[in-house]
Amino acid sequence: MATALDIGGLSAVWLRDNCPCPLCRDPRTGQKLFGITDLPPDAIAAEVREHGSEVEIVWAPDGHRSVYARSWFDAPAEPDPRSEDAKSLWDAAELGAERFEFPWSSYPGDPAPALTAVQRLGLAVLRDVPCVEEQVLAVAGTFGFVRETNYGRLFDVRVEDRPNNLAFTSVAITPHTDNPYRDPVPTVQLLHCLANEAAGGDSGFVDGFRAAALLRDEQPDAYRVLVRTPVPFEFRDAHTELRAHRPIIGADAAGRIREVRFNNRSMGTLRLPADELAEFYAAYRAFAETLNRPESMLTRRLEPGDCVVFDNTRVLHARTAFDGAGRRHLQGCYADLDGLAGTLGVLDRTAGDAA
Amino acid sequence: MATALDIGGLSAVWLRDNCPCPLCRDPRTGQKLFGITDLPPDAIAAEVREHGSEVEIVWAPDGHRSVYARSWFDAPAEPDPRSEDAKSLWDAAELGAERFEFPWSSYPGDPAPALTAVQRLGLAVLRDVPCVEEQVLAVAGTFGFVRETNYGRLFDVRVEDRPNNLAFTSVAITPHTDNPYRDPVPTVQLLHCLANEAAGGDSGFVDGFRAAALLRDEQPDAYRVLVRTPVPFEFRDAHTELRAHRPIIGADAAGRIREVRFNNRSMGTLRLPADELAEFYAAYRAFAETLNRPESMLTRRLEPGDCVVFDNTRVLHARTAFDGAGRRHLQGCYADLDGLAGTLGVLDRTAGDAA
Repeated sequence: MATALDIGGLSAVWLRDNCPCPLCRDPRTGQKLFGITDLPPDAIAAEVREHGSEVEIVWAPDGHRSVYARSWFDAPAEPDPRSEDAKSLWDAAELGAERFEFPWSSYPGDPAPALTAVQRLGLAVLRDVPCVEEQVLAVAGTFGFVRETNYGRLFDVRVEDRPNNLAFTSVAITPHTDNPYRDPVPTVQLLHCLANEAAGGDSGFVDGFRAAALLRDEQPDAYRVLVRTPVPFEFRDAHTELRAHRPIIGADAAGRIREVRFNNRSMGTLRLPADELAEFYAAYRAFAETLNRPESMLTRRLEPGDCVVFDNTRVLHARTAFDGAGRRHLQGCYADLDGLAGTLGVLDRTAGDAA
Repeated sequence: MATALDIGGLSAVWLRDNCPCPLCRDPRTGQKLFGITDLPPDAIAAEVREHGSEVEIVWAPDGHRSVYARSWFDAPAEPDPRSEDAKSLWDAAELGAERFEFPWSSYPGDPAPALTAVQRLGLAVLRDVPCVEEQVLAVAGTFGFVRETNYGRLFDVRVEDRPNNLAFTSVAITPHTDNPYRDPVPTVQLLHCLANEAAGGDSGFVDGFRAAALLRDEQPDAYRVLVRTPVPFEFRDAHTELRAHRPIIGADAAGRIREVRFNNRSMGTLRLPADELAEFYAAYRAFAETLNRPESMLTRRLEPGDCVVFDNTRVLHARTAFDGAGRRHLQGCYADLDGLAGTLGVLDRTAGDAA
């Protein structure tokens, strides 16, 4: 026999706000039909009755009746899927390829493992994706929506005669997140390798959440400086002028790491008192040194057909310089994590139905 | 005669990090060519010389030479364009229509006034936009990129037989921001009125930044609770399942208001200790009461041809119930503030060239 539910310790307004009845929740959409100011401020549970797996509450002063599933009371809090609590942080040496590489042939029938890797590890490599132009847009479309930017719906990463970004040259690019000068930043990036015949041009990936967590452990003052200092990031070309003021490490109010923005190429000029600048630069250098530790970087040469999908709020990417004579051509696009999480949510539901 | 520049009080690493020479900044892209760890940690200005409007520094220990414009040293900090510091907060009674209404006929030739209104006030109404299906996408394309979501690139706001959202019924919708269950949230919303023959269905807009600032003045404890408490927002239908954990009021580390998310329909279940729930709900009610003050709401009946463009991180929108018998049809889409700011930045540059 179930023990009697003691609701005396619960918040009355919280209970009432979560009433699932069809007057409170639209049965078609699941959306709440009242606002907080529609509830009596002094609502109290006048009667509480348990019927098997249900709990009925009759409210004073208005007589409203709520019926809850008994199990609802004990449901756990859902963690923020974007914070470090929902992630598996990794060190490159420990991250076996079987955890993040997935054959394209099995992806359409079973996308969940690769999408889960993007959500938990921050990246997945789909292998043998057809080497067809614009295929990267189709990959993005399997889990979300392309985020168009000034670089287009799709961008070509190859040597250009008149580059507006160093990405479109053959120089080495150190670990960075993309588009930190954009707010909201694109939260997913895809890079699809169509050709990689150049000498050099190997890719590297770094778990920025892990580096931030290491910095918090080892140099907590530096960590706090990076969390609290908005940095102006900038991009400017003939057709656009973008600027965002965001900290290098974004944390929620409880101090959980939620976002990393790191890009030496596009950091603008901070205007702060000299002592704060000295403090910021020491912290910035400390974080860069943490990111640059050799064990942090997963090195991987992209082969034609590889499509990397990664969390641009967490995983930094890099490439070595390459010989401009050899052909190297990636196609990329941006998308967003909420669509990816939503796709996984629906897949989980379907899996649950099948079970 | 200019006074000698005293660089003794400046941060050496900051000066060096901002060296504009072509070895430090790519002349083609303006991007920085070095990382912070490439700079000597102990760089000091060994020699400082002033030549007219330029200042030359020779650095020890590496002998690097930097030449700065004298004016660069005194440039002011640029405010974060997304925070309250860059906004004009308004009260509906004081906001004359001439500040936010703009004829479509003059918009293509001179979009800056309307876009500036979106940036500063949080909204603009373009009048007499052609009543053509999908025109709203063209309006978004004048300043940025459409953000596609599970609702499509474009969504129709009208009564539907099987709505997945109360927006697509005829019920009243209280002031809210859209898609709080999305992260990143769409930062701009457009609504283009094609028909409004129904009785009722008037629109309302509330400045959420002003309401948050009022709450901070009047009930600072409540304000702080809303800034520090992540709220789970949720949306679920047959094809998607979205969830975001974000506070109702987003502030930067210096306490500047930067984002408001408020939507009674899609607030999920908070799981917190009872005392924190009681505190949260008191704060939530206080903010709702502030938003609901009659003087907060700008009421406007949308006429066919009106296209409202508003900042969905700041301005809440609402509508009264309407008679489902009369035709009411809006077409909407989402876009982002960074694109809008970038377009304004380029327009300012052009204006500067012409001046």
